[in-house]
Amino acid sequence: MGSTAHNPSRRHRVVIVGGGFGGVRAAKALKRLPVDVTLIDRNNHHLFQPLLYQVATGVLSPGQVAPALRSLFRGQDNVRVLMGEVERFDLDRRVVHAVAQHEMEIPYDTLIVAAGATHSYFGNDDWATAAPGMKTLDDANRVRSRILWSFELAEQAQTQEERDALLTFVVVGAGPTGVELAGQIAILARRILKKEHRAIDPRAARVVLLDAAPTVLPPFPEKLRDHAAHDLRKLGVDVEVGQMAVDIDDEGIEVRATDGDGSTRRIASRTVLWAAGVQASPLARMLADASGTSSDRAGRLLVRHDLTLPVHPEVFAIGDMVSRPGVPGVAQAAIQEGKYVAKVISTRLNEYPAPPSFSYKDKGTMATIGRTRAVASVRGVKLTGQLAFYIWAFVHVAYLVGWGNRFEAVARWMWTIVARNRRERLISPASLLSDEQVHEEIEATRTRSKVAA
Amino acid sequence: MGSTAHNPSRRHRVVIVGGGFGGVRAAKALKRLPVDVTLIDRNNHHLFQPLLYQVATGVLSPGQVAPALRSLFRGQDNVRVLMGEVERFDLDRRVVHAVAQHEMEIPYDTLIVAAGATHSYFGNDDWATAAPGMKTLDDANRVRSRILWSFELAEQAQTQEERDALLTFVVVGAGPTGVELAGQIAILARRILKKEHRAIDPRAARVVLLDAAPTVLPPFPEKLRDHAAHDLRKLGVDVEVGQMAVDIDDEGIEVRATDGDGSTRRIASRTVLWAAGVQASPLARMLADASGTSSDRAGRLLVRHDLTLPVHPEVFAIGDMVSRPGVPGVAQAAIQEGKYVAKVISTRLNEYPAPPSFSYKDKGTMATIGRTRAVASVRGVKLTGQLAFYIWAFVHVAYLVGWGNRFEAVARWMWTIVARNRRERLISPASLLSDEQVHEEIEATRTRSKVAA
Repeated sequence: MGSTAHNPSRRHRVVIVGGGFGGVRAAKALKRLPVDVTLIDRNNHHLFQPLLYQVATGVLSPGQVAPALRSLFRGQDNVRVLMGEVERFDLDRRVVHAVAQHEMEIPYDTLIVAAGATHSYFGNDDWATAAPGMKTLDDANRVRSRILWSFELAEQAQTQEERDALLTFVVVGAGPTGVELAGQIAILARRILKKEHRAIDPRAARVVLLDAAPTVLPPFPEKLRDHAAHDLRKLGVDVEVGQMAVDIDDEGIEVRATDGDGSTRRIASRTVLWAAGVQASPLARMLADASGTSSDRAGRLLVRHDLTLPVHPEVFAIGDMVSRPGVPGVAQAAIQEGKYVAKVISTRLNEYPAPPSFSYKDKGTMATIGRTRAVASVRGVKLTGQLAFYIWAFVHVAYLVGWGNRFEAVARWMWTIVARNRRERLISPASLLSDEQVHEEIEATRTRSKVAA
Repeated sequence: MGSTAHNPSRRHRVVIVGGGFGGVRAAKALKRLPVDVTLIDRNNHHLFQPLLYQVATGVLSPGQVAPALRSLFRGQDNVRVLMGEVERFDLDRRVVHAVAQHEMEIPYDTLIVAAGATHSYFGNDDWATAAPGMKTLDDANRVRSRILWSFELAEQAQTQEERDALLTFVVVGAGPTGVELAGQIAILARRILKKEHRAIDPRAARVVLLDAAPTVLPPFPEKLRDHAAHDLRKLGVDVEVGQMAVDIDDEGIEVRATDGDGSTRRIASRTVLWAAGVQASPLARMLADASGTSSDRAGRLLVRHDLTLPVHPEVFAIGDMVSRPGVPGVAQAAIQEGKYVAKVISTRLNEYPAPPSFSYKDKGTMATIGRTRAVASVRGVKLTGQLAFYIWAFVHVAYLVGWGNRFEAVARWMWTIVARNRRERLISPASLLSDEQVHEEIEATRTRSKVAA
């Protein structure tokens, strides 16, 4: 696919791996440069991850948080979008190997890898089936189907014990995603479903938010953490901090207090959701091996101050797959890095002096709690309650791509609050399968058609 | 689960199987009667099937055409919703056997079976994987993923032949669903995707609409059929009527002209969609066997004039799973039947004389073609073009459940037309699997957990 031989008359080729916040922003920022950009992603959509928990709890539709990547670059002719899985980096030949229907070799002059992060079960990968994570749209669909299915089965339960296990929802990890998810499940049970069941009272559902850390929202200022814990308890969430998951299966979770005597306790639950560990995308390891770059315990690459790899100044790595002291793993960091990298490329093409090292501008952190409350820390100002919620809503709507999506998100939120209902409440059999099961079946189909051919 | 012994002090029990148009309307119409209603469905949602093609082509989200069944009966305390698969009818004991997590026995005094229809491959069930149908939300998600994936793979195709096959979309069946689907695929290629691809020109996509009948939209008046065919051709759809599918596989479809010499012709296509045959739900056969009721070639039950089974006046069958001369298989018929059955039940409870036989009031038929055109036949008046489209839109919005859904549908349609974009454009790996594959995997999971237990 294309020759890699040097041709001085052709334009500079930038290949971007990953259509998340970092990759999309970098591609956008390259708009006016004389470069040909190829953006590769395994999915056909960008994902606005900060609102993914609303897909998982039935508020927003997948399409409302995930515009098609192609549609983002309609008006930008120098970007080509390719859907495919990256299989290998050949840094010597400057080629990315990817695969969809065919093996593809995509040559580059500059490479930007922005493949993000995935969840980590801290070495307990067998927990994945019992406790799905929350990183992709398929994850969110799965979580939504599981939560709603538990309520359906509870309606039919034959013993009190079974009913209790079905109505116990455990969220592991009290970062923003875990806090927001637990809050929304509580609202679902207490406000949305309460008049819809006959054999159970959904308000009796127990929502447990677990974290091994001694507090919820560890990176937030103490005042906000306390406020968040208080608001969560008012919603009826059991906030259990200082509690470590030691085992998870289809019937429940085993926990141990971090300051206890080592004894464990079991919480019977049919719906355990994982919002705890994060590790770099497997592509970080692939890139580390190909380039000899070091990485930290979470697999994140240790990049140079200008976000390039140590011995490959033509290769940038940005976003959640890199380790940058003082920079949190949030969308805002990836966005700023994407812009910065485009600037470095621009100065290089123009042979201007290199810009100063990347530095992160903290624009604040925030998390919603339940229906109309939030905590927000913006440039030293700490906000809570409804005011924080309106700021949260404003900021998230502002960062959504496109006026259509903004309008729809606001309309949905208003309707959700007024009608006390959720629009997207499907239990889809397909979404109940694990990623592994789906991939096994897709592979099986491929093999079958090869054998038949 | 509950005793089936007769207890004169308890309320009359009505069990409704199926949460489609017929079942939901019957349950709603039973609101003021002293009856306990149990509504059983394998899904947790009602489905507004006339707009399903818009989910399949990325216009509407699943939630916008499929409200949760429970939420429809929030304010109606005499309805209990149960999610489960019906396994057997025991008409002697007056019990429905269903299963979700457990086997359930649901006793009734009156039974209404409204399980609808599924697609029929006319005895060629092996076509199902290559040519998915359009009856459920999982179907629609699958069709959407397949269509969009074909464009993605076309962008990467390595030969012209491969590219052409990927850009050829064949819709089998030129009834309303097929016509609407073909029109939307044409719009997708010519208007939505045209600026989003670099290696292909999506406008070169070929959309073929096949039917063995000599015309599109067979049940419509001739003038409207001709108009529809003309509008479809203007959109760039190849309307090929009088063409029968004789074989379908992953690489294309083999067709034979119905008035030809019997020779066949192959259309290379990676995306063949099935909108042709319809047959009654498998529950119709189950009910026929249990009651000795006859059925027609499509498996539809031959019910009495009051929609009861011949020897079981306490069992009603309504909607697409029954055969009623002169009554088309449309939502409106199921709705009218649901209301009628509730009325019969009411007269029986009150010991009034039975109402006259069911008679269908034709409120008209319509189908959209492409973006803002339609054909409509309403009480003898034939309409075409934009006027027909506005009537189509008004009627469909009016029949959508809830103001929220109505508002959102209109907002989406306006945005879709103005922005020339589609909101819901996800390619989900899970949705690419066939129902069979999903069920196999779910069964495998169940077996594994039983073995482990």
